[in-house]
Amino acid sequence: MTLWGGRFDGQHDADAAALMKRFNDSFGFDRRMYAADIAGSVAYARAICGAGLITEAERDAILSGLAQVRAEFDSGSFVPQPSDEDIHTAVERHLTELIGEPGKKLHTGRSRNDQVALDIRLWLRDAIDAIAGQVGAIQRALIAGAEAHPGVIMPGYTHMQPAQPVLYAHWLMSYFWMLERDKDRLRDCRRRANVLPLGSGALAGNPFAVDRAEIARELGMDAPSANSLDAVSDRDHLAEFLFATALLGVHLSRLGEDIVIFSNPSFGFVRLGEVYTTGSSLMPQKRNPDSMELARGKAGRLIGNLTGLLTVLKGLPMTYNKDLQEDKEPVFDTADTLAVLLPVVAGVVASLSPVPAAMRAALDPAMLATDLADYLVARGVPFREAHHLSGQAVRRAEEKGVPLADLSVEDYRAISECFGDDVLVVFDFDASVARRSSPGSTAPESVKEQIRQARTLLD
Amino acid sequence: MTLWGGRFDGQHDADAAALMKRFNDSFGFDRRMYAADIAGSVAYARAICGAGLITEAERDAILSGLAQVRAEFDSGSFVPQPSDEDIHTAVERHLTELIGEPGKKLHTGRSRNDQVALDIRLWLRDAIDAIAGQVGAIQRALIAGAEAHPGVIMPGYTHMQPAQPVLYAHWLMSYFWMLERDKDRLRDCRRRANVLPLGSGALAGNPFAVDRAEIARELGMDAPSANSLDAVSDRDHLAEFLFATALLGVHLSRLGEDIVIFSNPSFGFVRLGEVYTTGSSLMPQKRNPDSMELARGKAGRLIGNLTGLLTVLKGLPMTYNKDLQEDKEPVFDTADTLAVLLPVVAGVVASLSPVPAAMRAALDPAMLATDLADYLVARGVPFREAHHLSGQAVRRAEEKGVPLADLSVEDYRAISECFGDDVLVVFDFDASVARRSSPGSTAPESVKEQIRQARTLLD
Amino acid sequence: MTLWGGRFDGQHDADAAALMKRFNDSFGFDRRMYAADIAGSVAYARAICGAGLITEAERDAILSGLAQVRAEFDSGSFVPQPSDEDIHTAVERHLTELIGEPGKKLHTGRSRNDQVALDIRLWLRDAIDAIAGQVGAIQRALIAGAEAHPGVIMPGYTHMQPAQPVLYAHWLMSYFWMLERDKDRLRDCRRRANVLPLGSGALAGNPFAVDRAEIARELGMDAPSANSLDAVSDRDHLAEFLFATALLGVHLSRLGEDIVIFSNPSFGFVRLGEVYTTGSSLMPQKRNPDSMELARGKAGRLIGNLTGLLTVLKGLPMTYNKDLQEDKEPVFDTADTLAVLLPVVAGVVASLSPVPAAMRAALDPAMLATDLADYLVARGVPFREAHHLSGQAVRRAEEKGVPLADLSVEDYRAISECFGDDVLVVFDFDASVARRSSPGSTAPESVKEQIRQARTLLD
Amino acid sequence: MTLWGGRFDGQHDADAAALMKRFNDSFGFDRRMYAADIAGSVAYARAICGAGLITEAERDAILSGLAQVRAEFDSGSFVPQPSDEDIHTAVERHLTELIGEPGKKLHTGRSRNDQVALDIRLWLRDAIDAIAGQVGAIQRALIAGAEAHPGVIMPGYTHMQPAQPVLYAHWLMSYFWMLERDKDRLRDCRRRANVLPLGSGALAGNPFAVDRAEIARELGMDAPSANSLDAVSDRDHLAEFLFATALLGVHLSRLGEDIVIFSNPSFGFVRLGEVYTTGSSLMPQKRNPDSMELARGKAGRLIGNLTGLLTVLKGLPMTYNKDLQEDKEPVFDTADTLAVLLPVVAGVVASLSPVPAAMRAALDPAMLATDLADYLVARGVPFREAHHLSGQAVRRAEEKGVPLADLSVEDYRAISECFGDDVLVVFDFDASVARRSSPGSTAPESVKEQIRQARTLLD
Repeated sequence: MTLWGGRFDGQHDADAAALMKRFNDSFGFDRRMYAADIAGSVAYARAICGAGLITEAERDAILSGLAQVRAEFDSGSFVPQPSDEDIHTAVERHLTELIGEPGKKLHTGRSRNDQVALDIRLWLRDAIDAIAGQVGAIQRALIAGAEAHPGVIMPGYTHMQPAQPVLYAHWLMSYFWMLERDKDRLRDCRRRANVLPLGSGALAGNPFAVDRAEIARELGMDAPSANSLDAVSDRDHLAEFLFATALLGVHLSRLGEDIVIFSNPSFGFVRLGEVYTTGSSLMPQKRNPDSMELARGKAGRLIGNLTGLLTVLKGLPMTYNKDLQEDKEPVFDTADTLAVLLPVVAGVVASLSPVPAAMRAALDPAMLATDLADYLVARGVPFREAHHLSGQAVRRAEEKGVPLADLSVEDYRAISECFGDDVLVVFDFDASVARRSSPGSTAPESVKEQIRQARTLLD
Repeated sequence: MTLWGGRFDGQHDADAAALMKRFNDSFGFDRRMYAADIAGSVAYARAICGAGLITEAERDAILSGLAQVRAEFDSGSFVPQPSDEDIHTAVERHLTELIGEPGKKLHTGRSRNDQVALDIRLWLRDAIDAIAGQVGAIQRALIAGAEAHPGVIMPGYTHMQPAQPVLYAHWLMSYFWMLERDKDRLRDCRRRANVLPLGSGALAGNPFAVDRAEIARELGMDAPSANSLDAVSDRDHLAEFLFATALLGVHLSRLGEDIVIFSNPSFGFVRLGEVYTTGSSLMPQKRNPDSMELARGKAGRLIGNLTGLLTVLKGLPMTYNKDLQEDKEPVFDTADTLAVLLPVVAGVVASLSPVPAAMRAALDPAMLATDLADYLVARGVPFREAHHLSGQAVRRAEEKGVPLADLSVEDYRAISECFGDDVLVVFDFDASVARRSSPGSTAPESVKEQIRQARTLLD
Repeated sequence: MTLWGGRFDGQHDADAAALMKRFNDSFGFDRRMYAADIAGSVAYARAICGAGLITEAERDAILSGLAQVRAEFDSGSFVPQPSDEDIHTAVERHLTELIGEPGKKLHTGRSRNDQVALDIRLWLRDAIDAIAGQVGAIQRALIAGAEAHPGVIMPGYTHMQPAQPVLYAHWLMSYFWMLERDKDRLRDCRRRANVLPLGSGALAGNPFAVDRAEIARELGMDAPSANSLDAVSDRDHLAEFLFATALLGVHLSRLGEDIVIFSNPSFGFVRLGEVYTTGSSLMPQKRNPDSMELARGKAGRLIGNLTGLLTVLKGLPMTYNKDLQEDKEPVFDTADTLAVLLPVVAGVVASLSPVPAAMRAALDPAMLATDLADYLVARGVPFREAHHLSGQAVRRAEEKGVPLADLSVEDYRAISECFGDDVLVVFDFDASVARRSSPGSTAPESVKEQIRQARTLLD
Repeated sequence: MTLWGGRFDGQHDADAAALMKRFNDSFGFDRRMYAADIAGSVAYARAICGAGLITEAERDAILSGLAQVRAEFDSGSFVPQPSDEDIHTAVERHLTELIGEPGKKLHTGRSRNDQVALDIRLWLRDAIDAIAGQVGAIQRALIAGAEAHPGVIMPGYTHMQPAQPVLYAHWLMSYFWMLERDKDRLRDCRRRANVLPLGSGALAGNPFAVDRAEIARELGMDAPSANSLDAVSDRDHLAEFLFATALLGVHLSRLGEDIVIFSNPSFGFVRLGEVYTTGSSLMPQKRNPDSMELARGKAGRLIGNLTGLLTVLKGLPMTYNKDLQEDKEPVFDTADTLAVLLPVVAGVVASLSPVPAAMRAALDPAMLATDLADYLVARGVPFREAHHLSGQAVRRAEEKGVPLADLSVEDYRAISECFGDDVLVVFDFDASVARRSSPGSTAPESVKEQIRQARTLLD
């Protein structure tokens, strides 16, 4: 007898049935939700007892049986049967083996539709907490790196072209804030997921006096869902999770790109721990930043998972459709991907060491052309003109084939009388950095304050 | 002289330059942000005055000039020049034409990088407010429909197969909650977007004593951004907007699918206002639900916009890269799509009329098989057995070729003694619906309470 | 000693190393390419023997060792070691264990970069052949269904509204052609994939006189690749495979949608074999078309795989990057998904039985309004006017509340004198279908010819 | 009177109607297909004349009227009317204004469903030809660059780490082959698109004796479509076009990434024409490779267009649905994007100049570690051991802080007696490149042959 009862007559062609079973069953991937499934059943057993559908003795038998099923899953000793098409079936089947009659009462008023909707929400809550914790570890590594190297100056790039000098610590911290927003989005997702679908039945709701608010409380959820038709087909929180993690993946891909480029010897700005690099089967000299390349690549996978689920959901008619079974594998794949990716990134960041000399060597006085314009502004030249005059100086230096700082005062004054005798004072990278001291800017004191804010957020 | 000053020598090949200009310029699409751009400049003019970079008279000249530029955009009389490569250039160019020297001082310490980052945030804030308002209009139409037809019963489907009877009002309200979550997500996105990037300069921050907190206050933003490198390259809020709207689109695609199917004459459950249907160039009898088909199809477009931007962002190195210019067109396209789609959907919902007789005709007593099992449960049969016995009754009815309600009491008792003489009382669709009266279920009283909650949320 | 030789000193932190190993290794998923990997090595061993790099005895030892490794994989007795980071390493490691010294010579001039590029192409070739075969099975089932029910007429829909009567066989055959295009695309993909990258080394090519054309011939490939830098980073064929299969999935999703809708009892047009339906844990009467819902949903997953890989490839710099390791899992997932989905669809189609009476009952004379216009055209009325007059007749019938066929000749002539006394002859569904007899149309003779063409293509 | 005739009574709420019109109409974007639409009508007019539906005089009137409509579109003098909901309506409306009665006969037996299906295929054919031509221009620029700098050696990278020296010409040519495959895919797409849907009517086919094969011949198409239900809803060729162009975009994004990185001054390997760079509004020294950054970013947009359309198509029921109207905008956007992107890339490649000295300076003797291993192989050491010994040499050099080439012969012999006195001969970059002379490798002669093959393909 299969789960759905006495109606089908079992004379199916065996091969087709086996094939269809393989296509249809989800136990292979949804068994990982066993703890959530059992927690939901524990709460539901209490609720139907409260509603007078089972006795207290039956409830206790169920709770004790569920505890044993859970223990078997925990220890790896649970023995699946071919009839276990999904985790719900498997748990109920074994429960009934263990405790008999009361096990057959557990599903009263409940459907796998509201049951699976609950399970994945409980599972997701934990997954988000774990991910947020691992993201926090990366953030702490970023802060540690920023604090360890407070005065290191590196070229800042826009368009991958030298722009202005910035602090290495400022660069590290820029990733802190991306990750902080990721955590914020995950928190919002968790809040929206933390709603109880149980009690929605297959679609029409529950005909028994189960206390949904009490079930929600017991499971630590904020409230019961408001509409049963919606509740059994709502996968918003999974799509939102896939989005929040895809964007997290995009941020890590950017970090990956930076580190891959900065560890190329033409830059040589950073070294990452050897354990996070690998060699080549052909080229003995290689030390490849595989970890960060994979971090970059994983973003594609995470975006694919998001796109896939959104497309599954598009155009589905009223309430539960089997298409929704396609929700779990991308979500699990994303969680599994992050479970390895995030600690690797944390390890890479912790292992990262800057090479100040290489950074300093890549600083070009032309990166102070903006400071040169600012110098003119301070002498009363409207910025737009100052920018133009500074640009002329850059061109003059190029024509002469010298760095901008090596133009003479006379050269400058030939461009404009507005340049003073003290113009060369501009060419000081440290001073340039220090001048950018407004909140959020790259001056050491600003970055120090930024780190203080960051620490406060983490604690 | 172009915006970026005196350095280039202008001897470009004219055709290549024209082509490159077409490739590079954004004025064609970013001009719609003029109000945001000018609001940001107003606040910045005040800030650099506060920092002593311009006099109060210069500030007033700038403010007055900006007011005129804005008036010209408002009235459609602004005359673009070929040199206006983007909205920032255009505004500053014309400001300087209008007020001379002070106009050249406005950009002091500012970059187009932090300027555009501000503009799109201000623009997005307004777009989200407009969208949320239009979503609210759909929600009000859903509530009105639910209140106008409180007692209409329709077949509820899972797997597109008849499952259990539900209220038409319950079906309508299921979309209310999807949309409510969409609004919630948009609100979160707005909060994260409402942060001030201005003062981040090109990437390194601002070297002048501009009061960023004051600028944020003036623009109604929550705080200045914490890291300038991040601020000029952060497009998270746009990706988040594209996600929240893609999911909104998915919800509307599901409504579209429902209405398209339910308005097929084999169902005939609903009629939508004729204005929202169209005819055929070949087949004179056609009344096609084009509005709802397009609503279904637009989800694809919105998902495409999301995927596109995430892919643009993937793997970008440190700070601003020109790739980021690809952020605006998908965002504008999504907003424009919704600006028409949302009112159309609101109109369709408002025009929707149920056909209770058709719904009633599609109700099959077999949809009460669960109630039959529940009846046995009330007589002490464990649910799993009750489900099995009910399934046998369904099969018996199929074998006899009669509806489940037309089996005799003897038929039932032949299946099991547990069926009582009163078994046929089960076959009452209204009673079935009324029994599902827990919160969130389909009973009229539950739906009434659901509508009350919904109204509270809207007000 | 790891694969990449003697350089690393092994003093890594063990935990980090274990984590990184888990992140980096691909043996878990690329081991399935063992047959391809070994076939490539066999050909390469011959090539380096031909180039004088190894002796014939060494070659024979290698070939014999490889045969044994292959046999162990085939039988499932291959024992992986922790150092087996990928299939290439595993095979070479065990080969060397088996035959000693000559095993260490196999990798001469070869890199894992050109090796893996070859393996996946060989694997893909087989995967495409298998998929094309399974698609062919669906096509044969479609033809069989069309031939078995040559005269069954069903309502044809556009916009999911009744449009014109068509043959059930014509509907079935419409999927034949979608699938035929899918196979055509897969064939093109196979052709482009069937190019030999081996001999490209890590990136720079092969410094030994290996005969690449001969290797290609031996492996049944069309030619050696033309540029080594391209060859080691080219994943076009995988993206193309993911596209062709995503579109195949879209076609199956459309078939799924049709069958899900047509098997809803309000239509009742088709029944699918019970083995392809499933029941409900709560509702005993359910017979859900899960197979076709999953077929519809899988399209999302396949599209996600495509999007993911394209995003991985976007923006990668010159030649091989580790990001490319993300190519295989989506490709394998797509192949595995199709390996079950395709036979299920073939089975469903084979099991599908039409319900002619239900189809006939859903035919409405208004679906002949176009024929009514055509009737007027035959009497000399310009089509645009005929369409207008036919539309007036539809409206008149609606006003009178009767089917279009039940308007009297007088009613018609009141609309226009152009309607003749014989107007009611129009209302014959079979005649309408038969009239559409041009190639590709729905008349029985056209469909018969269509099936003949289809058979020719299949044979 | 609207296109679809006399049935609707026109009492719509005006605002809703205006809104719905805006939502529904496609003339705004499909008018660009006017030439295709008119060409199709010309062929159709001939066909219905051949079928005896119109006289030769009527046909000539239609052809002459269509010629005038086309001339008006060509010259920009066509005056649209509010009733022109799409290009088909607009053309027929104006045709009838111009020639009266015969214009009303043109649509006999035709539907907008088969008409639009034809139009977009004709349009696509031209678009593909144009794109292929522009891709060819890039290829010619690549070949020209390769031929202009035959001997320039640059560092080849894998994992963005120095790997082996390669020819600059070889690097340029690697993009030639990517683009060649893109053209090949576009050709296949064109072939599949070049099939005639006209004659499929709305869905059921054509009831008149129009000669579809003749229409196909006249329009240069390979054959009539085989199934009318498929033909009116087939958008495969558009999805395929969006895929082929997305992959083309990915290739250009890789070229963009390479050029962006190589033009950073830490590399300084290439300079791109100044016209393809832009400056900064804040930083006067900047020369940003905006063209190539945009090239990189556009890939995201093109992938988004593909994902969007595939999602639109997913799950659509039988035959034409209005969702399909969402096919054209992404296709047009992709074509428009490429129409500017491709010539920009061609221009950049043509303007690209290598800086051999910078490339040479970035070559490190460690990049010859593979050659060192090959040297040992030549002396009989098995490659796996040779790789290990070469790795030890790399480590020794690192320990001593000297380049690999500066280890003494004694150093080498201390590692292994297998190193001979002549070991230092290995350290010659030119010789290393020259050794890789198998087909497809980086040796000058191989690259020369590669270019010859490429030229042959282009001609």
